[in-house]
Amino acid sequence: YASRVPLTKAAAVLVNADYDAKGPHSLVRVRDVGVALDWCLHFFSPEPDRPPVGVHPTAVVAKSAKLGQDVAIGALTVVGDGVVIGDRTVIGPSCVLGREITIGKDCELRPQVVIEQHCILKDNVIILSGAKIGNDGFGYTTLDGQHLKIPHIGRVIIEEHVEIGANSCVDRAKCGDTVIHRGSKIDNLVQIAHNVQLGEHNILCAQVGIAGSTSTGKYVVMGGQSGAIDHIHVPDFLQAACQSAITKEFPPGTKVAGFPARETVAYYREQTNLKRLKKLIEEVKSLKADLAREKKPK
Amino acid sequence: YASRVPLTKAAAVLVNADYDAKGPHSLVRVRDVGVALDWCLHFFSPEPDRPPVGVHPTAVVAKSAKLGQDVAIGALTVVGDGVVIGDRTVIGPSCVLGREITIGKDCELRPQVVIEQHCILKDNVIILSGAKIGNDGFGYTTLDGQHLKIPHIGRVIIEEHVEIGANSCVDRAKCGDTVIHRGSKIDNLVQIAHNVQLGEHNILCAQVGIAGSTSTGKYVVMGGQSGAIDHIHVPDFLQAACQSAITKEFPPGTKVAGFPARETVAYYREQTNLKRLKKLIEEVKSLKADLAREKKPK
Amino acid sequence: YASRVPLTKAAAVLVNADYDAKGPHSLVRVRDVGVALDWCLHFFSPEPDRPPVGVHPTAVVAKSAKLGQDVAIGALTVVGDGVVIGDRTVIGPSCVLGREITIGKDCELRPQVVIEQHCILKDNVIILSGAKIGNDGFGYTTLDGQHLKIPHIGRVIIEEHVEIGANSCVDRAKCGDTVIHRGSKIDNLVQIAHNVQLGEHNILCAQVGIAGSTSTGKYVVMGGQSGAIDHIHVPDFLQAACQSAITKEFPPGTKVAGFPARETVAYYREQTNLKRLKKLIEEVKSLKADLAREKKPK
Repeated sequence: YASRVPLTKAAAVLVNADYDAKGPHSLVRVRDVGVALDWCLHFFSPEPDRPPVGVHPTAVVAKSAKLGQDVAIGALTVVGDGVVIGDRTVIGPSCVLGREITIGKDCELRPQVVIEQHCILKDNVIILSGAKIGNDGFGYTTLDGQHLKIPHIGRVIIEEHVEIGANSCVDRAKCGDTVIHRGSKIDNLVQIAHNVQLGEHNILCAQVGIAGSTSTGKYVVMGGQSGAIDHIHVPDFLQAACQSAITKEFPPGTKVAGFPARETVAYYREQTNLKRLKKLIEEVKSLKADLAREKKPK
Repeated sequence: YASRVPLTKAAAVLVNADYDAKGPHSLVRVRDVGVALDWCLHFFSPEPDRPPVGVHPTAVVAKSAKLGQDVAIGALTVVGDGVVIGDRTVIGPSCVLGREITIGKDCELRPQVVIEQHCILKDNVIILSGAKIGNDGFGYTTLDGQHLKIPHIGRVIIEEHVEIGANSCVDRAKCGDTVIHRGSKIDNLVQIAHNVQLGEHNILCAQVGIAGSTSTGKYVVMGGQSGAIDHIHVPDFLQAACQSAITKEFPPGTKVAGFPARETVAYYREQTNLKRLKKLIEEVKSLKADLAREKKPK
Repeated sequence: YASRVPLTKAAAVLVNADYDAKGPHSLVRVRDVGVALDWCLHFFSPEPDRPPVGVHPTAVVAKSAKLGQDVAIGALTVVGDGVVIGDRTVIGPSCVLGREITIGKDCELRPQVVIEQHCILKDNVIILSGAKIGNDGFGYTTLDGQHLKIPHIGRVIIEEHVEIGANSCVDRAKCGDTVIHRGSKIDNLVQIAHNVQLGEHNILCAQVGIAGSTSTGKYVVMGGQSGAIDHIHVPDFLQAACQSAITKEFPPGTKVAGFPARETVAYYREQTNLKRLKKLIEEVKSLKADLAREKKPK
């Protein structure tokens, strides 16, 4: 867009620090124009639709709950016994907070979020509408043909600056904790099973599934509808293509695709070769015929 | 079933217009027996389970909300400031309607639907229970290793005669609007990301995911668990097999399958050829041996 | 762990019936140590977070509803006309039970479950938070380019000892019933379409989708993100790998993978052969060149 800067009628223009032309308008020098532009959207945002500070008269808040300074609790929200909520946290309407959960400061829960008993949210956590945190994990023992439910007595811990998308689910641990480590961002309709340890600063796109007891490193990126099987470790910086399924260990930074997931470059090469397979089958047939003809005359 | 028509004890029989036999029973000539039969189910439906006209005393409705004629608001539903609801629209129990949303006439929201602020539903829209409309899109800028949330100041617009399934999610746009165009039908647990433009009369089966800023043409059909990546256009009349992932442009009317999606016929041929690959490997090995033997004697 | 038994400081040790060593501690002989250990977790579980027996004053319960002995109804839950709830059943906060549904004894519904009209839950059913039971199936007839909604006048029947995961959906039948047969366990975010007959003791992992009118036998296991197309039968004891899509009939006990699903062993062999395809293409090219050279001299 650099060539158009002199022509714009805007009052001010965001430019990178090394931009050297001048114009009639003010130049605002920034480290990264893209980041700065996204940041500026904050100034154009309508006032957020949040319940005001205080407890809405229709909310059902246990007497033993402890609310910090300037906490907002929306209409028709249930807050259980012994819940602790940190300063400035906003709980939207129609949420259910189970017994003895702890929520940090400056968190935001959108409408119809459910947090089950004993779970912990640290500071600056955002949970979008309909997400369900702390359900029993999916674990059974089979005895005489009956699947018997295994108690899940662990918790879910969600660390600082995590965001969890609409209608996503994070299950509580059988023992110990399911942990979403700091800075990770989870899109809508994602499944995080019991005892998962999701590393720091992961990006999980919509409809991803992480099976039980699997852990991930830092800065893992999982594309939409991809998954990882249970009891494996996904290394730092791995990037999984959409719809891939991680079934084994990889070195850090690997880009993978397919089921079972292999390196993306290998996967795409295989798919390209697959297109040539029909011709190859014909070539081999023709080679066999040729060779047979060669043999005969002797 | 034509041969059985004379034998039936039914009082009346639906037949296509060109049906020429007669019987003791009444024949009801219709353009399409299948369509007519489905239509007749309406007469056998139990009375629908909808809240009666009026506002349930436990609903929390902002004074500034404007309700049309014969609107029904169910128990424990929250209606925010400045909401406008058209005539005869029915909002089920336990829904949350955010500030300044507009809903048209003859719409129906089943229980526990959430519509976030400023979104627009036109006439005759049906939203099944638990669907979440208007959450922030999944967008971040990464600066110094931190994923920073990008504000989403756009809206969701849902046009006439759209139906959205249970627990599905449609995210608001970063800027501008996410639009579901008229007549499209979306099944359960579907993800529609920010800034998507879903064309008219699309059919999206359960668990489909459409990534950010992608658009679709008219009459697109996407099978269960299929998806489309971000920033592409899916053409009119494309049909995607279940679990396919559309990653590039196709001509209108293409039928696709696989990841990355290619023409369905090609995909199935490849899968068939893949089965022959083992034999082919053996044949090539044997050919090499044969050829080596041929060469030697000379 | 057998060698470590003599060394443990535990007061008691669970051992299999045939364990023959002795120790200073008590040995508790059991049929299956794994099962027994999971069972023992019950004794370490915190008291469950359930509403107390009785109806919470904020619940909205129709006068015509019939509640059994020791039923608990949580805060802000809606119970419709003619609902029947069996003894000792616990309905969590913020649920919506539609008209004339029947729920058996000793069931548990966690928060924000929706059950639509006329559905039936038998005894000992557990439904986790946010699950939606009894929405209209996804069925339309297309006439003059418009998709017309087909009425769904059937029900959902959920038999004894079934568990359904968080935010999962089970749709009502067009006619007749969608049935989840006894003992089946369904994880989070699963889609069960209209008229499905899910057999006894199935295990459906997270994000599975079963399309309309499909039936399954006994003890079917479906891995995460797998699916079955509509109108097929999945046989007893079939095991589907994660992300597989069942599109045809198989013999009982088959293990399948891929799209379209084939036997798992075949699928993996194909994927292995696929890796060799590049080399094979080169070998055939080289063979052709060799053979051409052979021919020329004559």
